[in-house]
Amino acid sequence: MMPFYFQDYKKMSIAYRPSHADATYDMKYGVRAVQGGGRSSARETIGRVASGAIAKKILKQFSGTEVLAYVSQVQQVLLPDGSVDHDTVTLDQIESNIVRCPNPEYAEKMIAAIDAVRIRGDSVGGVVTCIVRNAPRGLGSPVFDKLEAELAKAVMSVPASKGFELGSGFSGAFLTGSEHNDEFYTDEHGRIRTRTNRSGGIQGGISNGEIINMRVAFKPTPAISRKQHTVTREKKEIELLVHGRHDPCVAPRAVPVVEAMVALVLVDQLMAQYAQCNLFPINAELQEPLSLGFPNFEPAMI
Amino acid sequence: MMPFYFQDYKKMSIAYRPSHADATYDMKYGVRAVQGGGRSSARETIGRVASGAIAKKILKQFSGTEVLAYVSQVQQVLLPDGSVDHDTVTLDQIESNIVRCPNPEYAEKMIAAIDAVRIRGDSVGGVVTCIVRNAPRGLGSPVFDKLEAELAKAVMSVPASKGFELGSGFSGAFLTGSEHNDEFYTDEHGRIRTRTNRSGGIQGGISNGEIINMRVAFKPTPAISRKQHTVTREKKEIELLVHGRHDPCVAPRAVPVVEAMVALVLVDQLMAQYAQCNLFPINAELQEPLSLGFPNFEPAMI
Amino acid sequence: MMPFYFQDYKKMSIAYRPSHADATYDMKYGVRAVQGGGRSSARETIGRVASGAIAKKILKQFSGTEVLAYVSQVQQVLLPDGSVDHDTVTLDQIESNIVRCPNPEYAEKMIAAIDAVRIRGDSVGGVVTCIVRNAPRGLGSPVFDKLEAELAKAVMSVPASKGFELGSGFSGAFLTGSEHNDEFYTDEHGRIRTRTNRSGGIQGGISNGEIINMRVAFKPTPAISRKQHTVTREKKEIELLVHGRHDPCVAPRAVPVVEAMVALVLVDQLMAQYAQCNLFPINAELQEPLSLGFPNFEPAMI
Amino acid sequence: MMPFYFQDYKKMSIAYRPSHADATYDMKYGVRAVQGGGRSSARETIGRVASGAIAKKILKQFSGTEVLAYVSQVQQVLLPDGSVDHDTVTLDQIESNIVRCPNPEYAEKMIAAIDAVRIRGDSVGGVVTCIVRNAPRGLGSPVFDKLEAELAKAVMSVPASKGFELGSGFSGAFLTGSEHNDEFYTDEHGRIRTRTNRSGGIQGGISNGEIINMRVAFKPTPAISRKQHTVTREKKEIELLVHGRHDPCVAPRAVPVVEAMVALVLVDQLMAQYAQCNLFPINAELQEPLSLGFPNFEPAMI
Repeated sequence: MMPFYFQDYKKMSIAYRPSHADATYDMKYGVRAVQGGGRSSARETIGRVASGAIAKKILKQFSGTEVLAYVSQVQQVLLPDGSVDHDTVTLDQIESNIVRCPNPEYAEKMIAAIDAVRIRGDSVGGVVTCIVRNAPRGLGSPVFDKLEAELAKAVMSVPASKGFELGSGFSGAFLTGSEHNDEFYTDEHGRIRTRTNRSGGIQGGISNGEIINMRVAFKPTPAISRKQHTVTREKKEIELLVHGRHDPCVAPRAVPVVEAMVALVLVDQLMAQYAQCNLFPINAELQEPLSLGFPNFEPAMI
Repeated sequence: MMPFYFQDYKKMSIAYRPSHADATYDMKYGVRAVQGGGRSSARETIGRVASGAIAKKILKQFSGTEVLAYVSQVQQVLLPDGSVDHDTVTLDQIESNIVRCPNPEYAEKMIAAIDAVRIRGDSVGGVVTCIVRNAPRGLGSPVFDKLEAELAKAVMSVPASKGFELGSGFSGAFLTGSEHNDEFYTDEHGRIRTRTNRSGGIQGGISNGEIINMRVAFKPTPAISRKQHTVTREKKEIELLVHGRHDPCVAPRAVPVVEAMVALVLVDQLMAQYAQCNLFPINAELQEPLSLGFPNFEPAMI
Repeated sequence: MMPFYFQDYKKMSIAYRPSHADATYDMKYGVRAVQGGGRSSARETIGRVASGAIAKKILKQFSGTEVLAYVSQVQQVLLPDGSVDHDTVTLDQIESNIVRCPNPEYAEKMIAAIDAVRIRGDSVGGVVTCIVRNAPRGLGSPVFDKLEAELAKAVMSVPASKGFELGSGFSGAFLTGSEHNDEFYTDEHGRIRTRTNRSGGIQGGISNGEIINMRVAFKPTPAISRKQHTVTREKKEIELLVHGRHDPCVAPRAVPVVEAMVALVLVDQLMAQYAQCNLFPINAELQEPLSLGFPNFEPAMI
Repeated sequence: MMPFYFQDYKKMSIAYRPSHADATYDMKYGVRAVQGGGRSSARETIGRVASGAIAKKILKQFSGTEVLAYVSQVQQVLLPDGSVDHDTVTLDQIESNIVRCPNPEYAEKMIAAIDAVRIRGDSVGGVVTCIVRNAPRGLGSPVFDKLEAELAKAVMSVPASKGFELGSGFSGAFLTGSEHNDEFYTDEHGRIRTRTNRSGGIQGGISNGEIINMRVAFKPTPAISRKQHTVTREKKEIELLVHGRHDPCVAPRAVPVVEAMVALVLVDQLMAQYAQCNLFPINAELQEPLSLGFPNFEPAMI
């Protein structure tokens, strides 16, 4: 019932919820939406997902480009490396369970992990992996606006995100150059490819046509139903116990948001590349047409 | 001698160096600077460091804000958690050795690790940790331009970076909300603070006055002096052996670049906040003056 | 009644109305809102006026800055030079008649001129003059973003505008330098002023504290109730007779829109100047505080 | 000789030259380049002209688009309406005399007018007319970024400009709608055209394929060799007599600068239109291909 929800938020309004935006909004603006968090609520991501849906259609139609994300970790439950085939994984597989993990066995483990904390009124963190198949070559800029920089900004603006990796990411820091470098070869269609993809589909800030793959870390939902110490606006220390209906793990819900942000970045970059390098191609032999890069793909129209 | 260097680059010009920007530049522009990489050379970061030096002066003078970065990992050598005190670490400590690690014992181990690969003509990856002390509260925007999003973009534009973490980062994904949340209290100066700092100094996209801390992963330098398979511009597969003088680990050199990018973001955000919220403060009790937030700090002028 | 309006627009939808946006929208997008013009309708200016109202409040409160516009010409009826005192003209005087001309005698002549064309189903053009009193010094940038360039863009984006002048404008082209230059003096408050103001309050792209004055030309409303030749989307030539209720002169209605656009530009520039030059003033003797430039003005708060 | 020039500027450095940027730069920044004006010198326009030359080449090659400007007024000497045929006027005709007026008879009168003031140490104002032939249809945006708004900003950023008109401009304010509207017809190539062009090639903020024509007013050069009253930085009133070699009329020199700014705006808009509407044309029958709009034009490549 409405009054009940209202009361929930009213109680919280006197105190800064730990690890929420309550305190920083007050520090910045001197005012905040005490009921529901306003702009700091992840409800705002609906606009991202709606526009991302259009972006995904454009990418699909123009160059057969697909953006797919899935949950690859919930707390201690990690999908083993290689357990998802990025060449073939489908939206249906991802959407086949509530936790949005394409591996049914691990999906069950993740659901169990979430349930375990949910009944205690607690929450857990997780990781979302996102891939882009058939990304046109040439997207991104050389210096400040590298494609990975644009992607990092886009996904690090998603509520609760704490980390971003491209390709080898932090694990690449453990390797040597001879282990990490992606050697080039020419494939059966005469396209220049790399045998490995530790670069994550981007080299020198520019997409190289391999699968772009990223991982995004999400912290445990800060909204928990357990007693916490905090302070009020008036700086008085109090104990806070919030009753509410919150997601115990944001990762599954972040999946379409991450996809949307990635798709929006790619359409932006596609438009920039189209205007910058397709209006007057300099060297047609080196510069593949944006939409014709992928064997077996028939572009919708040019 | 000049002709020697020239020859080096000439040899490479016929082939795409693995994991360099050679191929993607050609795919995008149809042309590239074959001698030295042009804009893809990390030499371009000199401009970042030069402007970052001015940004650091502004931050220091305006609000006593300090930006410090150091190497926290070289390949398998990791600085243990807590071995650097972020409240007290100094530039002198960081600059006391060539690898820019403030812990002398680990600095030696890192130098040894780099030497080991250098003599084999190979390279290694690493991690740079960056902290911001005395960051003004209120920097950053609520939705797309969250402070961590701006920082992520800035450091992911540094050549060879592969990952970005704020606060708990990817390790936060393993925790529960009750373990992760940062409880608030009021300190002896009457300032609202958090007892822990898993948020990394940013909540809801906005700085909260705690130390901002980030980690940035760097891949091993792709320029190695070992035989590699690759292709030429004409798509012919060849073996490439590059002779040259390259850094076997970019992490120590990335330290001032990361500092510069972080400082530039902060000055931008400081100017935005100053114009947006200081021109007409709405609620002076909640909104601390930007430059007066830190006990014992005397701003240079207002 | 609703169906009636609907019919009006339906009739027009088959043809491109002369000097409307119908044809160019189709040429650009391949689609347009045939009922009412969509974004090309001047109804969109309501958003400009609403936000401009807030901008005007900020300017008034921060630095006593006032933005006032009025109709200075309707077809052949021109307000003589000097017939409006820009130091003293008030909003009440401007709003005292329907044509928004502060001179009652000329207001009547303008109303008569409009009535004369209205009954014939025709329309007339006009000119709006806009002034800014107590504009802070220092607004604007030296090269591409000169204050007059920003103002020109802002008002030339108002529907039906065809020309922009600052200060002496086109009539300044008839003068010599010795006639046109504004000599400096020091006034009784010790402020540097100019004796004349052919510069229109801006020199070198930057406001100098004198009254900013501009003139904006508006074409006659293209929507007239007279038979016109035109073509349909299918390129067939036809005769078009539109029945509708349209303003015979847009100038009086453009008055608050011009004020709004000018106020929005000024607040933008004020914020930029505040962040750029007030965060760290270099030379307090030369740089007057933004909000303290005007004798007898008490800023609301700092 | 060098020392002489130096002295010239040194003398001026103690005083604010009337109608120069000296005073406003000091008011804004608290510092200025006393020798030569720094960024306020029209010397900065060399960068505009250089990049404009590239923009003009792109326009010419892509769509046969030509940008041409000429002097149409010097003080009291006005080129009569219609004395320059915008369909046929050439760069050679414009460059055939020092004052850049394509009509030799009026060019002589203009030169005489300039000489008359030059020997008195004075200066005069003027007007530059700029046209764009074969502008692609569809350039510009519906609301804030109308093509005329972008053009107005671009040319009002040229030093010494005081006014901007598109098509009928200020004279359009004297007309009725039935006199002003541009009726449509279908030409012999099956293209939708307007019989008149009071719109100046832009309707609803978007280019319609007719000749874009603009007029830009320039004030008389403020640098004159006559005694003037002014004040010093210390607010002391003095008499200033500047000896120097300055242009007595900036209009002829502004011709290539205006062309450059217009060409740069058009290339920007062409790129935006290409990315926005050519990537996925909605309605090919209504949306002519950008580069194929003009009969007898063979695009260089697509």
